[in-house]
Amino acid sequence: MHSEITNLYPIPSWVHESVIYQIFPDRFAIGKGKTVKDKAELYTKRGGRIVEWNVPPKRKDKAEHVKDFYGGDLWGIAEKLDYLKDLGVNVIYTNPIFLSPTNHKYDAINYMKIDPQFGGEKAFKYYIKKAKSENFRLILDGVFNHLSSENPWFKKAIKGDKRHVSKFAIYGDGHRAWYGHKSLPEWHLEEVEVMNYILSVVEHYLRQGIDGWRLDVGFDLGYVNNALIAKTAKSISIEKYVVTETWNYPSNWHMVDGIMNYHFRNSVIAYLKGEFDNLAEALQGAYNDTPNIHGCWNMLDSHDTERLATVIPDKDLRKLAIVLQFTYPGVPVVYYGTEIGIEGGGDPECRATMRWNEEDWDKDLREFYKKLIKIRKSETALKIGTFEVLNKEPLVFYRRTPHVLDGMIVAINKGEKKAVTVSVPDGRLLAGTCFTDLVTGEEFWITAGVMTIDIPAKGFRLLRVTNKTRDGYNMYKRIY
Amino acid sequence: MHSEITNLYPIPSWVHESVIYQIFPDRFAIGKGKTVKDKAELYTKRGGRIVEWNVPPKRKDKAEHVKDFYGGDLWGIAEKLDYLKDLGVNVIYTNPIFLSPTNHKYDAINYMKIDPQFGGEKAFKYYIKKAKSENFRLILDGVFNHLSSENPWFKKAIKGDKRHVSKFAIYGDGHRAWYGHKSLPEWHLEEVEVMNYILSVVEHYLRQGIDGWRLDVGFDLGYVNNALIAKTAKSISIEKYVVTETWNYPSNWHMVDGIMNYHFRNSVIAYLKGEFDNLAEALQGAYNDTPNIHGCWNMLDSHDTERLATVIPDKDLRKLAIVLQFTYPGVPVVYYGTEIGIEGGGDPECRATMRWNEEDWDKDLREFYKKLIKIRKSETALKIGTFEVLNKEPLVFYRRTPHVLDGMIVAINKGEKKAVTVSVPDGRLLAGTCFTDLVTGEEFWITAGVMTIDIPAKGFRLLRVTNKTRDGYNMYKRIY
Repeated sequence: MHSEITNLYPIPSWVHESVIYQIFPDRFAIGKGKTVKDKAELYTKRGGRIVEWNVPPKRKDKAEHVKDFYGGDLWGIAEKLDYLKDLGVNVIYTNPIFLSPTNHKYDAINYMKIDPQFGGEKAFKYYIKKAKSENFRLILDGVFNHLSSENPWFKKAIKGDKRHVSKFAIYGDGHRAWYGHKSLPEWHLEEVEVMNYILSVVEHYLRQGIDGWRLDVGFDLGYVNNALIAKTAKSISIEKYVVTETWNYPSNWHMVDGIMNYHFRNSVIAYLKGEFDNLAEALQGAYNDTPNIHGCWNMLDSHDTERLATVIPDKDLRKLAIVLQFTYPGVPVVYYGTEIGIEGGGDPECRATMRWNEEDWDKDLREFYKKLIKIRKSETALKIGTFEVLNKEPLVFYRRTPHVLDGMIVAINKGEKKAVTVSVPDGRLLAGTCFTDLVTGEEFWITAGVMTIDIPAKGFRLLRVTNKTRDGYNMYKRIY
Repeated sequence: MHSEITNLYPIPSWVHESVIYQIFPDRFAIGKGKTVKDKAELYTKRGGRIVEWNVPPKRKDKAEHVKDFYGGDLWGIAEKLDYLKDLGVNVIYTNPIFLSPTNHKYDAINYMKIDPQFGGEKAFKYYIKKAKSENFRLILDGVFNHLSSENPWFKKAIKGDKRHVSKFAIYGDGHRAWYGHKSLPEWHLEEVEVMNYILSVVEHYLRQGIDGWRLDVGFDLGYVNNALIAKTAKSISIEKYVVTETWNYPSNWHMVDGIMNYHFRNSVIAYLKGEFDNLAEALQGAYNDTPNIHGCWNMLDSHDTERLATVIPDKDLRKLAIVLQFTYPGVPVVYYGTEIGIEGGGDPECRATMRWNEEDWDKDLREFYKKLIKIRKSETALKIGTFEVLNKEPLVFYRRTPHVLDGMIVAINKGEKKAVTVSVPDGRLLAGTCFTDLVTGEEFWITAGVMTIDIPAKGFRLLRVTNKTRDGYNMYKRIY
């Protein structure tokens, strides 16, 4: 099924039953009963501007919005674990938390310091301890291609200090920088001293109990450094997880456990907006070409994109996107607030603060997420099943499982109410097997490998094999 | 490399870094400061005979030795976790613990009751809690092909009770029993009611926190029931582990995570005793044919075989067997007491009590185990590497790793001191790469893919790739 290249490392098995919640720390919650005003000095003394929680973030000239701070911190996240438990997610991915001059912190001054704006080392230790005790897994954001021009080594290097000059690419009239942004000098990762330092950072946080890393701009790190970071993580434990950021087709990153699958996002959104007809082929092709697809991230939005509710305002269609996010192979990643319907355009609008007043929630949407999260965590088909398109439009696909009795068929219909007949190419599925809709309880039956499914308008089906035994007769007693 | 059939389920990733310790509960430790005399009534009122801890077990006519009890229990195991932590093992596999008339308890009366001789439910709960809090993983022994003829359902069935008669195979003059032993009636596993009951037992203990099952006489359960038990375990979590008992070549059990690899044991022992020349071919063939080899158990002895020290009295040769146990793909399983040199012939002699007086220990041997356990838990090559024979005699093999810098070469020499030259077929291993002996620190260098290794008489080499960088020059900066 998959291409002949296989994963370098086995995907950690806990990843298969994970649902990740992504948090942009400045915008999620302020801990210890404080407001941003109580913390004002932490920002203003470093050239930042404080903003009240309910004021939406705004784009400003010269990207000055990166200096707008809302006061969220790790204390705040630790206090909201009950909310996450209730939602059902079991992994937290935080955007960068190391010392940095901006609100997004994608430009570290020092990887070994937790930014005091987020509570510093003390809050970090507390966050780890509390989250671990409630069985959350934790993923950090590692920005190892570039750093802040305020880093002391860089400041010395740019002045010609020989001890540091080879850590970067210093030119006569400047230096190599990420996409040319001079405030973001690139590391000279081929220098053994530099890469050993990066790897020591990778190791340090994993040994503190962090379960994995998301590698920023993994395409800039390149194949060798991705492999070296994976090697380091896996040397600590085969259970550590490494996911890399790419914005491309998901194949060819077999040296890590997976990538951020923006190809999934863009295909699904374009399809639901009526701008793309070949979703079935796109999803099948990416599955076939990506041996580590089960470790990839299924996202519908992030800190780098418009919010889902803004891109797909029609809630019925939006729910179809969410069903795909939870049923396509890969790990669903819910961007904080999207589960309650928060809207927002491109950065920085998509980084609005979390709403904690339930009056502001789309409660129906949140219940929908809870239901899908629960199903995603309990169904073997969704954890490790294959992906096999059975029908293109409406989209119907089969998640084949090791034991035939765990199989699922998913149907997505963005148009009018339709009945579709599919052939399910699995000789283990005996004639007269029942599939039950996990949401409505309706039953569908397969005979001779052919099955008819009716799907409501702008609706979906989550069908699961159900073994009906009767008076001691069990047709699967000698089949698996 | 492997056959085209692949594992049905991914092997749980924690299994890759596990070293299992097997405990026969009646013989390991008595808890709460008691002696068997203090517990006498638990045995005598059920027709058992108590035996003092230091009296060796003896074979008796009519297998009456199965009624000899030494008093070990789950309280005792829980009290000895520090010993296991010091040794370095991180998984405990206990022989059966459910209510049963014998000391081995391979004939359950009731799967849902922990035998009071082992401390009952209270001790079991305590054992789980304490072991979990110290990060041990726990494996139970599931004997689901047959049961004790004292089981109440069986006793009713044999009298013709229609509610229970179909659970077994009752003949006019008797019933179907394991290997014809009438006290061990076989379950009628094809009856949906029976198998659902068995699966409810499988589920019950996994939900209590047990991490996996060892399935007794897996060959008798057959492929379908192995698959059904695996399905049930994996439905609870993809991280649950299922290993089945077979005494055959390890291939063809891809529906579970692995088998007990007695083929490994018998090949290695016969080779070291000079009775078998083709160890290299046997180990390579089994590796090639067994896609779930990394989930299989590498044993050198068990409750069903003679003790290692009895089979291989020469300690230098015995150490070579142990090196193979820790370096061949699969999970090493240390049978309690073998690490301190306890001897014993076939059942019941191999089930002697654990020695707790350090005077009785082979301390050198125990230190040797500790060293190998530590290496096994830290080296990626030994956790997930391939197995590629480089030389037949002395036996030299390569454990290829995802990142070339984690590779290992292992050499085993049962004869006179020898130097052997091998070709290592991995184009990523650059000329001038160093391999370091993890025990002695000696260094060996590879050039053009060819390397010479000298090996002491009755000795071994554990060689690990070491990347030597110098003055900023790192030859692996663009290679993985």
